[in-house]
Amino acid sequence: MNTLTVDLGDRSYPIFIGAGLLGDSALYTPYIKGRQVLIVTNETVAPLYLQQVKAALADYQVDEVILPDGEAYKDLSTLNLIYDALLQKQHNRTTTLLALGGGVVGDMCGYAAASYQRGVNFIQVPTTLLSQVDSSVGGKTGVNHPLGKNMIGAFHQPQCVIADTTTLHTLPERELSAGLAEVIKYGLICDSAFYQWIKDNIQALMAREPQALAYAIERSCQDKAEVVAQDETESGIRAILNLGHTFGHAIEAHQGYGHWLHGEAVGAGMLMAADLGWRMGHINADELRELRSLLQAAQLPVVGPANMSVEDYLSRMQVDKKVLDGRIRLVLLQRIGEAYMTSDVPKDLLTQTLLAGDKLGTA
Amino acid sequence: MNTLTVDLGDRSYPIFIGAGLLGDSALYTPYIKGRQVLIVTNETVAPLYLQQVKAALADYQVDEVILPDGEAYKDLSTLNLIYDALLQKQHNRTTTLLALGGGVVGDMCGYAAASYQRGVNFIQVPTTLLSQVDSSVGGKTGVNHPLGKNMIGAFHQPQCVIADTTTLHTLPERELSAGLAEVIKYGLICDSAFYQWIKDNIQALMAREPQALAYAIERSCQDKAEVVAQDETESGIRAILNLGHTFGHAIEAHQGYGHWLHGEAVGAGMLMAADLGWRMGHINADELRELRSLLQAAQLPVVGPANMSVEDYLSRMQVDKKVLDGRIRLVLLQRIGEAYMTSDVPKDLLTQTLLAGDKLGTA
Repeated sequence: MNTLTVDLGDRSYPIFIGAGLLGDSALYTPYIKGRQVLIVTNETVAPLYLQQVKAALADYQVDEVILPDGEAYKDLSTLNLIYDALLQKQHNRTTTLLALGGGVVGDMCGYAAASYQRGVNFIQVPTTLLSQVDSSVGGKTGVNHPLGKNMIGAFHQPQCVIADTTTLHTLPERELSAGLAEVIKYGLICDSAFYQWIKDNIQALMAREPQALAYAIERSCQDKAEVVAQDETESGIRAILNLGHTFGHAIEAHQGYGHWLHGEAVGAGMLMAADLGWRMGHINADELRELRSLLQAAQLPVVGPANMSVEDYLSRMQVDKKVLDGRIRLVLLQRIGEAYMTSDVPKDLLTQTLLAGDKLGTA
Repeated sequence: MNTLTVDLGDRSYPIFIGAGLLGDSALYTPYIKGRQVLIVTNETVAPLYLQQVKAALADYQVDEVILPDGEAYKDLSTLNLIYDALLQKQHNRTTTLLALGGGVVGDMCGYAAASYQRGVNFIQVPTTLLSQVDSSVGGKTGVNHPLGKNMIGAFHQPQCVIADTTTLHTLPERELSAGLAEVIKYGLICDSAFYQWIKDNIQALMAREPQALAYAIERSCQDKAEVVAQDETESGIRAILNLGHTFGHAIEAHQGYGHWLHGEAVGAGMLMAADLGWRMGHINADELRELRSLLQAAQLPVVGPANMSVEDYLSRMQVDKKVLDGRIRLVLLQRIGEAYMTSDVPKDLLTQTLLAGDKLGTA
């Protein structure tokens, strides 16, 4: 087992990474302060791992709430099911919420923890690659609104994160790919050596070789933790973690949440950001085409949805959280391994990228 | 105009108290950082004061959302009307929410500000005595759940509070009384000199004499600000602000939110706490009866609802936020001007208080 620490002063917390951690009581107990635990999971994950986690928590009052699975349910009314369970079982301020599942479960459980009685403790047990490398680090929690993704939420840090790599064996292929999109992102935005490693090891990752996956998770969490530690509430540098997300959020919202996986939308979005960066002269044609090949090797989409017009993108991008005072702000690549945020985006080049269709990223 | 500062480090903010402040542009502008403002108000307050506030903000994109009036609407679905407005009008992270109304508007607007895009700025313009002396200080925001009051929320401090005493001229009598319940509370829990002043000036307060009201607001805010500055997130001393609230919340929840005003329930709840304190030997019979007389002079209830059994109280009090690990914790008076929190409550004496009926507080 490897342990990383996310360094946020008195809100610092450890991430445990390794095989078979899920059922280890000793990992949980130091992080549970009261006698009550509510496990929040979903109907897909519950049959696989719920009993193991409950067995590890036999010394507590353990209740559970099993949500429907999918981004389409990441909304206020599903969130209310968590509040209902907490109140029906009389959970008090010392309760601990435990998120057992992917990013949607983690975001909703985390936000319930942020807002129940104005804030209680929570523990993350992410069971997808995406949530292990991304949503489990950084304290972003929340739900979607019909008019925008993650528009309702809070920053709320967990007590600890337990990333059990064994859970990745049951992950559907599309979700493995979606997770790899975020892994690739860390290489692109801040870690060119890691990007090179990913290119060299993409087949091992796709084959779910345990060592490769564990290394990718650890390095991604490390990269993210370093960025988050510099800027907990995203007033500056942290925004680079959103490479591809402004495009991706527009795709997800336009298609209806759940049709494109978040990682798939981010994959296409990163290629759009890179394509725009190439048009702006920041990265060269080889680098752009290499990224396209890597995304293809990870079985990620390299083109946006056929049914989206330029106007569909722009109107959705206007309401994204990265917008300040009406101007679209985008994270772009200065070079491979270095991203930056800008609101100075040439409209004509952006339009060319959005119109590229299946020529996207082919330079 | 008097200015108080609530001292919370980098979250410190001023409270402006005086007549005719509502329409003064200069008070708002230093506290609005973007170009967008959403005014959140209700159908009772909007016809009285909305145009004045909008006129003062003519330099901004000003949108508004007018909520139904009353505690019965302090819930997630009404909250969603605020998110809808923010997203329909494309408000971004630099927006400022402005709460124009009483405690319910302030709590909901504040919570929308805490959670929209994971937190935006807000300004409080409280228009009731209760909200001027209580909910505008301390950063508690949130909504009710059918199973418990204020169970969903956040701590989120405003940029500034503008308490315009002129708005109290339009306040219904019941709401004036409800506000005085909280004023009396500050005297009871931490300021015996102020308690004496209230007893001497209760007729002036009931007659809405401007000087008396302004003094009561200022002193109450000062007392509350001092307590909050010591304990922003209620891990300790701040809990004394909840004198009467555990009883009061049980009454409100049992009767259905909105039937008893919050201040009315707190009034009866404070007398229950005092009655229990007398039975425990902390305050004497004269002090108890004086409090009862003062509450009567303020036209506040001095007896709980006739339809509540001891069991009705106890089951509601179990789920209150002041409960830790299943034990009821109560704020009680050590003496007039000094409160304390205890989970060591003799069950038999508590039962006697809950059974006292119209003998409550008569010693």
